[in-house]
Amino acid sequence: MATPEVDVVVIGGGLAGLMAARALSASGRSVRVLEARDRVGGRTWTRTAASGVPIDFGGQWIGPSQERVTALAAELGIETFPTYAAGSTQYSILETSQVERADARAAMDELDRMAAQVPVEAPWEADEASAWDGQTLQSWLLGRSLDDVSRELLRVLMTGLFTMEPEELSLLHVITYIRSAGSLHQLIKVAQENRLTGGAQTLSLRMADELGPDVVRLASPATAIAQDDSCVRVTTDSEVITARRAIVAVPIVLTDRISFEPPLPAARVQLIQRFATGAAVKVHCVYPDAFWRDNGWNGRSLTGSGYVSVTFDNSPPDGSKGVLVGFIEADKARQFIGLSDTDRRDAVVARFVELFGERAADPDEYLEFEWSEEEWTRGCYSANLAPGGWTRYGPALRRSTGRVHWAGSETSTVWMGYMEGALRSGERAAEEVGLALDGASGRE
Amino acid sequence: MATPEVDVVVIGGGLAGLMAARALSASGRSVRVLEARDRVGGRTWTRTAASGVPIDFGGQWIGPSQERVTALAAELGIETFPTYAAGSTQYSILETSQVERADARAAMDELDRMAAQVPVEAPWEADEASAWDGQTLQSWLLGRSLDDVSRELLRVLMTGLFTMEPEELSLLHVITYIRSAGSLHQLIKVAQENRLTGGAQTLSLRMADELGPDVVRLASPATAIAQDDSCVRVTTDSEVITARRAIVAVPIVLTDRISFEPPLPAARVQLIQRFATGAAVKVHCVYPDAFWRDNGWNGRSLTGSGYVSVTFDNSPPDGSKGVLVGFIEADKARQFIGLSDTDRRDAVVARFVELFGERAADPDEYLEFEWSEEEWTRGCYSANLAPGGWTRYGPALRRSTGRVHWAGSETSTVWMGYMEGALRSGERAAEEVGLALDGASGRE
Repeated sequence: MATPEVDVVVIGGGLAGLMAARALSASGRSVRVLEARDRVGGRTWTRTAASGVPIDFGGQWIGPSQERVTALAAELGIETFPTYAAGSTQYSILETSQVERADARAAMDELDRMAAQVPVEAPWEADEASAWDGQTLQSWLLGRSLDDVSRELLRVLMTGLFTMEPEELSLLHVITYIRSAGSLHQLIKVAQENRLTGGAQTLSLRMADELGPDVVRLASPATAIAQDDSCVRVTTDSEVITARRAIVAVPIVLTDRISFEPPLPAARVQLIQRFATGAAVKVHCVYPDAFWRDNGWNGRSLTGSGYVSVTFDNSPPDGSKGVLVGFIEADKARQFIGLSDTDRRDAVVARFVELFGERAADPDEYLEFEWSEEEWTRGCYSANLAPGGWTRYGPALRRSTGRVHWAGSETSTVWMGYMEGALRSGERAAEEVGLALDGASGRE
Repeated sequence: MATPEVDVVVIGGGLAGLMAARALSASGRSVRVLEARDRVGGRTWTRTAASGVPIDFGGQWIGPSQERVTALAAELGIETFPTYAAGSTQYSILETSQVERADARAAMDELDRMAAQVPVEAPWEADEASAWDGQTLQSWLLGRSLDDVSRELLRVLMTGLFTMEPEELSLLHVITYIRSAGSLHQLIKVAQENRLTGGAQTLSLRMADELGPDVVRLASPATAIAQDDSCVRVTTDSEVITARRAIVAVPIVLTDRISFEPPLPAARVQLIQRFATGAAVKVHCVYPDAFWRDNGWNGRSLTGSGYVSVTFDNSPPDGSKGVLVGFIEADKARQFIGLSDTDRRDAVVARFVELFGERAADPDEYLEFEWSEEEWTRGCYSANLAPGGWTRYGPALRRSTGRVHWAGSETSTVWMGYMEGALRSGERAAEEVGLALDGASGRE
């Protein structure tokens, strides 16, 4: 092959890929980032509503234990602000009677207890890995004594975290994911604490700006990656780039969109086949003001009835507009997608009225986004590994394939599936590549 | 777009694609078949051993209830012959004591009973679909009282059928698959009754010969399929073909290798993500003669110990050589793949010696094949739908996407995963396309 043009080609301009490129660039490596879309940010995407309010269609929250994303925001000069929380939650099945919560609380404690036993670098080595991976979360739930409210609560929480129903999820995957965040408490209470001024995509936009347009190439999907003993060659519709190493930082379910030469090893191929994304729709209503605050409500709700299972106050920090965000997940998302545009809007607004009164009835704007039809995402929030997958194919998750290294939030051992996990995966892949290039400096 | 060059482009030159092309061609439609490899046949592939014996690396058996494949073989002038069965099975855990078999038999009867309740055209409509789809086969097995031998027997049988472990399988998928074949008895006892003279690939080779090289293009992977209101445009590395309709007849896990414009709908994308292939290695030893027959043995075995779980006499019909075939599946296949070439051969030969005596120690040839590293297959025998998948995404399985229709053995309601299923799926897709072309004849 030809002489490498750059040290490293990164495929994917989401948080993982840009973080990898940023780290490599900072250590003096020459980098190229190939992004399929005409924008960076991957599963973070901030659109500006007609009223001028930035609306995050994808990931949006960061929590205090998420060190990398917090540090990166500070480095890039992006301010953060607390998610509005003053006042009471409008309705939450978490806050039904103590008696009813007891069963759910016990189940959540047990999930946390199991999670604490999972070696997060190698979940397949947990003592009970095989038993946990061989059953669905639903089988585990059915094996417990749970009253109806607790059962509903757990379903709402779990579909909220995984955008899949308990019937679809491996118990080992669930507790590995919990472990990577620390605990269920971290996932449910801490992960939503803060927001990023200007929206979450700003992280990627700023990183891309720093790298510059010569480095970050938009609308350049990689179609093929070939490698031999000396280099890697990445093909797009318009060019072929040779490099010493490649980092693939696309959603793991999209890996097959790239043709590999030599073909990927069986373990990686079959690992990829066992990942699937969930279904989720994020809906927003923009109002002239955050009227619910007048009633002492914080805009939050958590319920099993209706399409929208969770709401938050998503207003801009200056309070110039009132924004409610709602999440529709898993089976409900699949049903919701089947409705007409009008019916979807009407269902959401009606629910907001039920929760927050008549002033919710006439939003200035209704915005929704569903990721599974997005060609370069194919589902949200993150991908889950099917029953039996972690114990059989987990060891292939971060294992590099010759000169090709793997990043993406799903490969992170900390806050897997979150922006934090994406950044950490990019750092880890950059470190791997750095070591490889250093070690081989004589030859390469 | 340009005027269609042909009525129908078929992507994939396996049994499904060729059958579709044959049916369409017979009804006067112009057809093009694009096959990625330099051969037709897909998961049927017959190589000639050094001794001249044809060896099937992929699918090889047909059973008396498999009407389409039996009829096609007759039409194409391919003779069939019975799998050698005279004499005794060398060892089978099916034939351990009655007491030990009772638990296994009861479990198999129960699976058959459940299978009979599955509407095979719409498994998601079974009364207990949600409960069955929400658990793994392993959870179901653990819920039964089973002695150790029965448990081992069921694992060997199920990994033999699905090339996945019970921990990986949806119970609803298992019984849907059973239902599509009729019963477990059909799968275990009937499906292996006959073989095809010259090997199973002969079916595809003859169909391709009849269609001719102008129709069947080898080494032509489709990279993109675009469609609009008037036609479909299929791109390969060397050409762009316009047609009225397309049939995609590639293994369902390979769908993402093709770029679709417009992108595929969410339901199909997420359906595909939920399919995964199993792991299987097929091993052959070729001997100067079928020496085991001298001892009154039929060459068969079924056991849970060692890598090889099942063996059969795979000698050619004229008895000119003796061939033993063995199957290594699921977890054992994954372990086996990790051994060195020598260790793999030694392990197989040692097992054959244990089963059939010292004369098995020195085969003229040892041949093995593992499909998961095959770029255009990615695992065998067929793909299984993960827990929760049938009930959520099953309706998308055969639903055409505009001018693109879907074939492949996984889409068949009869003998799903078998050569019979592949042929039926091709017929069904051809029928769909024929109706669409007739119905639209005024316009198209």
